[in-house]
Amino acid sequence: MRIVMKFGGSSLATAAHIRRAAQLVAGQRASGDQVAVVVSAQGDTTDELIEKAREISSEPDSREKDVLLACGEQMSMALMAMQLQELGCPALSLSGWQAGVHTGPHHGDARILKVDPKRVEAALAEGKVAVVAGFQGLDDSGDITTIGRGGSDTTAVALAAAIGADTCRIYTDVKGVYSADPRVVDRAQIHREISYDEMLEMAALGAQVLHSRAVELAREKRVKVEVRSTFFPEDLGTALSLESGVRRPVRGVACDESVAMVTVLGLDTGPETCRLFTLLADSGVNIDVIIRSPGTAKSRGVVSFSVGGDDGDKVSAVLKSSRRELGYAGFVAQPGMAKVSVVGAGMSDGCGVAATMLRALQEGGIEPQYITTGEIRISVIVPREQAPLAVRLIHKAFFGD
Amino acid sequence: MRIVMKFGGSSLATAAHIRRAAQLVAGQRASGDQVAVVVSAQGDTTDELIEKAREISSEPDSREKDVLLACGEQMSMALMAMQLQELGCPALSLSGWQAGVHTGPHHGDARILKVDPKRVEAALAEGKVAVVAGFQGLDDSGDITTIGRGGSDTTAVALAAAIGADTCRIYTDVKGVYSADPRVVDRAQIHREISYDEMLEMAALGAQVLHSRAVELAREKRVKVEVRSTFFPEDLGTALSLESGVRRPVRGVACDESVAMVTVLGLDTGPETCRLFTLLADSGVNIDVIIRSPGTAKSRGVVSFSVGGDDGDKVSAVLKSSRRELGYAGFVAQPGMAKVSVVGAGMSDGCGVAATMLRALQEGGIEPQYITTGEIRISVIVPREQAPLAVRLIHKAFFGD
Repeated sequence: MRIVMKFGGSSLATAAHIRRAAQLVAGQRASGDQVAVVVSAQGDTTDELIEKAREISSEPDSREKDVLLACGEQMSMALMAMQLQELGCPALSLSGWQAGVHTGPHHGDARILKVDPKRVEAALAEGKVAVVAGFQGLDDSGDITTIGRGGSDTTAVALAAAIGADTCRIYTDVKGVYSADPRVVDRAQIHREISYDEMLEMAALGAQVLHSRAVELAREKRVKVEVRSTFFPEDLGTALSLESGVRRPVRGVACDESVAMVTVLGLDTGPETCRLFTLLADSGVNIDVIIRSPGTAKSRGVVSFSVGGDDGDKVSAVLKSSRRELGYAGFVAQPGMAKVSVVGAGMSDGCGVAATMLRALQEGGIEPQYITTGEIRISVIVPREQAPLAVRLIHKAFFGD
Repeated sequence: MRIVMKFGGSSLATAAHIRRAAQLVAGQRASGDQVAVVVSAQGDTTDELIEKAREISSEPDSREKDVLLACGEQMSMALMAMQLQELGCPALSLSGWQAGVHTGPHHGDARILKVDPKRVEAALAEGKVAVVAGFQGLDDSGDITTIGRGGSDTTAVALAAAIGADTCRIYTDVKGVYSADPRVVDRAQIHREISYDEMLEMAALGAQVLHSRAVELAREKRVKVEVRSTFFPEDLGTALSLESGVRRPVRGVACDESVAMVTVLGLDTGPETCRLFTLLADSGVNIDVIIRSPGTAKSRGVVSFSVGGDDGDKVSAVLKSSRRELGYAGFVAQPGMAKVSVVGAGMSDGCGVAATMLRALQEGGIEPQYITTGEIRISVIVPREQAPLAVRLIHKAFFGD
């Protein structure tokens, strides 16, 4: 069997952590498998490197920042290879460019375009564990790129696809994908299986287990992904699959605690609304939920939308500088909000999920200001301080006590 | 004009140090020059990385150690490029492999075979400062190599040769090449000019200003090298040239404080002596001074040689394990010795340098046990605790008070 094993930064934080992870890898190889490992930077290394850059420039050049950050994974991969060898397990480290990870040119958030696994295949053929740096690649100009935070998951999936691995196992500091955050909901359950689509919604909605781009890629390339705990490696964790095979309509409750709502009043619903979202996109703001009430001839429209909590100031700046152009009447920004969502492939059959969810919130005295529904999820926006209670109430309604 | 400016680790220790170095670079470029910069790892970074490796393995794999250590210079180059940009000076960082530094395969001590400066030239043509990572390169297998401690000097000289730079300026924490270590001899003088050959002897004999491999390469490629202080950049420092143009026979007094002497008694002077040095070479011991007294039929020979202070144990091990093979009578190892040398291209004319040197030592009560002479240097081996006095006495004899 061929397997890709990916370890995140918290699983590699110290020499002792690396030893533990390396023991898992060496054990897997000893069982007769061909093993490629993908590593993140150790613990807080990435943050420390960012701080070094910040001492020099408040806005460091993105190309140079990538050169700097890529060192984090390069250090990890060398240490992991050393530790494997120390355990008697032959190993070879490969940086992004050595492992053939080709990306687009967008520094700090590059897309993996292709993986040419020549050197990984050669290492595996020699009976070595290939230890590949996650999060990084090389663009057409021969420059080092990084593929965004959480990007090592994506590297692992892309590598698994390129070498035709039987499975891509993501080791992390939780035991798998839960029905809700176990720090918030005591009785949260681990899913043994979950579909790519459900995982994708969970990831996008703030469940931090897997990076959503990695899940998308896994779905596209049909890579079998497993999520396991580094600290309880014998537990089976969660397997991702095309169909979850589970009939329950709701699979999980997710929460994104850093949301700001912005409501623009008296905005024409035609080209002006369109122009507003163009301006926001140009300034790098990602808009999530959009709720629009079409205007009448007299009152014009009301547009509300949610953005990441960090982007609230940017939105205000865009709105202020474009007031004349857009001709809106006013706007209200609400920072400190949270988005609570239920996700499940079964809910599109229309079995009263929204009603159950709202009733649960109502009983706890929570009146969500905004509600949106998607194909396999329903989200409500609530004040941040109500979010944990909302998660617990909704989880109880769908999963019992 | 084209110039290569090289900064060592102590010149880049903190963000403030990097700013200072970057200001020198930006000033040079503003004067109309094309500038390539070579950087070492910041301050203690290399030692910290070695410590990380040591936590995992007492003898880490040399390939993986190179992968790890190369991060030190990669971080430096990114930070330097950011700082230059922050000063409004366009800059592009290039790692060893990006800058076309091809080396042999000997990890940890690779030789630079060729520099293909395509990307450096492109950056210079665009008016950018090319910031190149010192100390590292790429071998034929596509693996990262390092070229040994002090190797950034060599990178700078090799790059200067490859791009036909008019000068290669080495910024360091001393003001230039002195006639003796200024921490030992108050009246030590800075040489404005020194020949490659003299510098080579000085470097090999423990004057830490320039790595000897860099000097060799500069001599071979006819690269004009200057040594300057990062902290007093307006001082001219020392320029290396083919001929020093100075008639004084002695140019400097150098001291290597970490030497061990080994004397092997009763060793046949024929194949056995040859075999001994082969065995030592095979176990990685570099032998310096060799003094042999040919044996008579009765007593056989005595061979004494000096090695680096760290290699004393290795030598003892080799001698013990080969006693039967070599058939020597016994051996004495003397750790804690130092080698004090006078260097000067003029001394080969035979003008009593050895006599002056020995007289000076004699007056101070120092009787060197071993004396060797080379083309442009004379060395004595003395106990380490006598070395500073020996340096001062010799310096006074040749340079006055």
